Amino acid sequence: MKALVYLGPQKKAVEERPKPEISAPTDAIVKVTRTTICGTDLHILKGDVPTCQPGRILGHEGVGVVDLVGSAVTEFKPGDRVLISCVSACGKCVNCRRQMYSHCTTGGWILGNSIDGTQAEFVRIPHADMSLYPIPKGADEEAMVMLSDILPTGHECGVLNGKVQPGATVAIVGAGPVGLAALLTAQFYSPGQIIMIDLDEGRLETAKRFGASSTVNSADGQAASKVMSMTGGHGVDTAIEAVGIPATFELCQEIVAAGGTIANIGVHGKKVDLHLERLWDRNLSITTRLVDTSSTPMLLKTLCSHRLDPKPLITHRFKFDKILDAYETFANAAKTHALKVIIEA
Amino acid sequence: MKALVYLGPQKKAVEERPKPEISAPTDAIVKVTRTTICGTDLHILKGDVPTCQPGRILGHEGVGVVDLVGSAVTEFKPGDRVLISCVSACGKCVNCRRQMYSHCTTGGWILGNSIDGTQAEFVRIPHADMSLYPIPKGADEEAMVMLSDILPTGHECGVLNGKVQPGATVAIVGAGPVGLAALLTAQFYSPGQIIMIDLDEGRLETAKRFGASSTVNSADGQAASKVMSMTGGHGVDTAIEAVGIPATFELCQEIVAAGGTIANIGVHGKKVDLHLERLWDRNLSITTRLVDTSSTPMLLKTLCSHRLDPKPLITHRFKFDKILDAYETFANAAKTHALKVIIEA
Amino acid sequence: MKALVYLGPQKKAVEERPKPEISAPTDAIVKVTRTTICGTDLHILKGDVPTCQPGRILGHEGVGVVDLVGSAVTEFKPGDRVLISCVSACGKCVNCRRQMYSHCTTGGWILGNSIDGTQAEFVRIPHADMSLYPIPKGADEEAMVMLSDILPTGHECGVLNGKVQPGATVAIVGAGPVGLAALLTAQFYSPGQIIMIDLDEGRLETAKRFGASSTVNSADGQAASKVMSMTGGHGVDTAIEAVGIPATFELCQEIVAAGGTIANIGVHGKKVDLHLERLWDRNLSITTRLVDTSSTPMLLKTLCSHRLDPKPLITHRFKFDKILDAYETFANAAKTHALKVIIEA
Amino acid sequence: MKALVYLGPQKKAVEERPKPEISAPTDAIVKVTRTTICGTDLHILKGDVPTCQPGRILGHEGVGVVDLVGSAVTEFKPGDRVLISCVSACGKCVNCRRQMYSHCTTGGWILGNSIDGTQAEFVRIPHADMSLYPIPKGADEEAMVMLSDILPTGHECGVLNGKVQPGATVAIVGAGPVGLAALLTAQFYSPGQIIMIDLDEGRLETAKRFGASSTVNSADGQAASKVMSMTGGHGVDTAIEAVGIPATFELCQEIVAAGGTIANIGVHGKKVDLHLERLWDRNLSITTRLVDTSSTPMLLKTLCSHRLDPKPLITHRFKFDKILDAYETFANAAKTHALKVIIEA
Repeated sequence: MKALVYLGPQKKAVEERPKPEISAPTDAIVKVTRTTICGTDLHILKGDVPTCQPGRILGHEGVGVVDLVGSAVTEFKPGDRVLISCVSACGKCVNCRRQMYSHCTTGGWILGNSIDGTQAEFVRIPHADMSLYPIPKGADEEAMVMLSDILPTGHECGVLNGKVQPGATVAIVGAGPVGLAALLTAQFYSPGQIIMIDLDEGRLETAKRFGASSTVNSADGQAASKVMSMTGGHGVDTAIEAVGIPATFELCQEIVAAGGTIANIGVHGKKVDLHLERLWDRNLSITTRLVDTSSTPMLLKTLCSHRLDPKPLITHRFKFDKILDAYETFANAAKTHALKVIIEA
Repeated sequence: MKALVYLGPQKKAVEERPKPEISAPTDAIVKVTRTTICGTDLHILKGDVPTCQPGRILGHEGVGVVDLVGSAVTEFKPGDRVLISCVSACGKCVNCRRQMYSHCTTGGWILGNSIDGTQAEFVRIPHADMSLYPIPKGADEEAMVMLSDILPTGHECGVLNGKVQPGATVAIVGAGPVGLAALLTAQFYSPGQIIMIDLDEGRLETAKRFGASSTVNSADGQAASKVMSMTGGHGVDTAIEAVGIPATFELCQEIVAAGGTIANIGVHGKKVDLHLERLWDRNLSITTRLVDTSSTPMLLKTLCSHRLDPKPLITHRFKFDKILDAYETFANAAKTHALKVIIEA
Repeated sequence: MKALVYLGPQKKAVEERPKPEISAPTDAIVKVTRTTICGTDLHILKGDVPTCQPGRILGHEGVGVVDLVGSAVTEFKPGDRVLISCVSACGKCVNCRRQMYSHCTTGGWILGNSIDGTQAEFVRIPHADMSLYPIPKGADEEAMVMLSDILPTGHECGVLNGKVQPGATVAIVGAGPVGLAALLTAQFYSPGQIIMIDLDEGRLETAKRFGASSTVNSADGQAASKVMSMTGGHGVDTAIEAVGIPATFELCQEIVAAGGTIANIGVHGKKVDLHLERLWDRNLSITTRLVDTSSTPMLLKTLCSHRLDPKPLITHRFKFDKILDAYETFANAAKTHALKVIIEA
Repeated sequence: MKALVYLGPQKKAVEERPKPEISAPTDAIVKVTRTTICGTDLHILKGDVPTCQPGRILGHEGVGVVDLVGSAVTEFKPGDRVLISCVSACGKCVNCRRQMYSHCTTGGWILGNSIDGTQAEFVRIPHADMSLYPIPKGADEEAMVMLSDILPTGHECGVLNGKVQPGATVAIVGAGPVGLAALLTAQFYSPGQIIMIDLDEGRLETAKRFGASSTVNSADGQAASKVMSMTGGHGVDTAIEAVGIPATFELCQEIVAAGGTIANIGVHGKKVDLHLERLWDRNLSITTRLVDTSSTPMLLKTLCSHRLDPKPLITHRFKFDKILDAYETFANAAKTHALKVIIEA
């Protein structure tokens, strides 16, 4: 089969690989019909993710059709259309029992990382019963791809951890795909104000269309004071960090109100300053999280009941044989205005 | 009346001052029968607390007898024996309505800070109905002094924020009075393991007597690896920081398990490093809090039902005319082994 | 001044009464500009509410302008436009401290019940600081009247107690004003399905306009089986009882899913059957509550941010001198299609 | 192998049966070393549990040694000493994902009910990875048997659902094994007062030894007024019903304080009266639950850390060939003073 393979820093290629096989009774093999590219895939290609070694098929998002199942798989059978979760979960280890699937002792984020992923014709899914979801009748398959990773990530790491409440004020720092996913899912809880902060005016306009109540372009270094004035000097109840650099985490500390929460989503490559000398008495929570996809069943319900429309996150579409173009488009988002790209079998 | 007055960095004296008067209908004047000294009083004396200006009577802890009440005070009358909360709360501002009394818009920690405090013969208590508590019949008055500040501080900032659960593992970094208050109140929730960490062997022995399941002397720089091995390599569910310096906050980051909480109690004077490059995917909560004393009613109940015995926190007793000796003793805890000192009228 | 006075079962009249006076330093006198009639007022007129004695001015809802304040009132001054909460709260008793204002030891639902109410030119509001709310700039005063009682009632007793979640299924039994208030506020949390159940086809059509995803007319006795088939045989996650009779509580027991909640709002006059022989192992919560109005600040924020539009609840308007007509209209809702009637000064 | 078999109402016998076999890859066969008898087994013998048909091997509690495992079992291997949970859970259905294992779509309470149980030499355990627990080194095997059912039942249905808090007041109606299990586990949360209510003076004395702060013999019909006077007229924060008849549920309604919880554990055979005419405005929660054993990992930790000692629940011991005597003893608890009986292989 054809697969997009990581070959070491800055190197990738479409290669011919053997079709994966069932290796545990809880495995399934899924024929991938649609996949996508994540910012994390770009991190891997920079050589920043040591768990992902050269030779690995990338990709941890997608939908497909079950091709084969192991003897212990009870929830799926060949022919079922399925959503692939970016997190694999055994369901029975100490972490899975508390729904912290991201830290499953034999799973977590392994697809396209420590095992081969979804940017291929077929993929082996370990712990299939807990790691696949049936595609509801009538659901849009492209929209479903957004539920593999970015929507649960925005929802769990940003919105749930950030305890977004009706009438509350929220700032989301970073209007990339994950920040926009947080914006979409924050609206489940009817906050009074969602302020979107980014350097890119195009993305801020997108954010407006996605439901932001206001936007702040942080290019002039005045973002903090603007947010303070927009919130009557109180700051925000929830500050969601969706970038992953020290400057944006710093901004969150400047705008969070007493009693509020900083919910980190960003993948950070270096340490940040935490201003406990100012914050020790501010009654804050600061949270970190690798998405657990524990809210995927809820997200599926909101999709089916039309409370959630992830379709506008998709900006470009490619056939699998053009996947290198898809990478090119996605990696140059500033120019191409790409959010999420769909790669079809 | 006699009062202990802050006179600027490193300076304090017992001075004669006029007896305070009712200045708002919600005020009460309390004759102080017992007070104590807090680590924060020492901070003020170092000149580290800019809200506290020279001329201020210090002290934010104590018990006494109501002397006078304003016209709107309904819960107390002259002659009532009362516990004085370190936090004053109007009960009706936006922050009080969410029980974040520490950020009361006309209260919070003001006693012995921005208004005169309890280290005097009399003290004016604003918002008296919300800031005083009746002393239950039969309660030990000395023990009650521990409920003004350190027990709610240990309980709220450490134990409640740290979400201590039955069977869970807890580490408390710092075995001073507040760390020990966290140790006492953590036991309300029956954790399986409470590891106490300090540099002072004497305090660690005290911690053992107060219920610590094990202790670690961090003098050798091996505290993190010791805690990891005591917890089967998992780390602790709750790490409580009760010191307030970068090194101890760093230690908490090293020993907290995935899915765990770092609950900061320490008063920090400088920023700390937050290792998001390692922690972004660890599903952590990090909390800060100025005590709200919202749990004081609960603590009073546990005291009355003998689930809590704060008496052993008291190591020394002085008459008010020896308050300078009391300061001397408390400030030299390493030598005097002082935890809390009682100053009697 | 003119006031609507309860004169014993079935008897009421507009009478001339003295203007109320400040009787405690925490009181305010409010000139009522708009009030309304509640189902509970009709209960009183039937003689069903023994705490309300003949001679009482009725009414516990309304907006107005502060006329006078007691010496301890700090949040309001004469001339302020205010929302009057149906619940009076001292803010400092044991129940107020846990935000259970409905059981305030010197307050609770007393207006138009054990003390004179709002269906008059002026009303005395005890515990004014906690029981009045400033009317936000630009807010519609008629819409605000809905926040005195029915919106917090639907929200707290129905939606919050019922733990409505994104994607979840909700049934609301009773499409009267309070059921519709539950319907409006349930949408804060983006449930997947809200099934509205009533006997009156007109009210069900109103419910559709207010956002119900489907409606069931229970006149044929088939409501339970219809709801079960609408939910794939599972039943609903939340069943909200907004009528107050045994038959509707029975229906809730038939349609609630395992692990779900029955949130009672209805004022019941007799005991009901609880089918523990079927429900003991169903992992249910059944809740009761007198509205605390603890969510009023949140509701005000949702109103200001246009997440909540209560205006359509208002169907009729009367001048105060036509208040007897207003009662007539409200009491004959089946014929007049009245939901809430506004009575203007 | 030998097994205790239900033969229809009032009939049981020890019979020879074939050793069970693996029938799904997730099954394990466990050699039972110790089991016990539950009140539910007596219900079955009265013919009250229609899901349990004649021919069934009874028993849903016990410990043993793994004999065989299916191909998909990863957590256990032959020779492992294990605790058997009374609830079988697949871990992956919609209910297991929310930790409501009691309603697992292919599990729940099936052992000794709809499939053969533990009162035999061997038992087949479906969903073995989620339904067995390793016996910690050094743990007392007899004590462990108490964790199969009664301790999680008392803890989850009584204590967790009842939201027992430090300093709070708790009444437990019924001092049988499950009521005592609630009493033991309530102490995890340091309530101020635990009032134990029963008709049997012997059981009340046992309750005192198990940590009850006071006891009430309800034989004279004055239990409600006694509890009210013990609680200063307020009633209890948590009323735990551990009997299962209308009279005891009625008592709970009489003694629960405003804002409190009635947590039902009892297995009810008939409907009860719910006094909504008095309770609609009392801000109550009433909960029902079939034990999920979701707290078993926590209970194991408390056992290992000596926060929980279930050993005193065991009053009698029998060899398996005397199991009929064990039933006799257990069924005549009033006379024999039996709480839990251990049956050893």
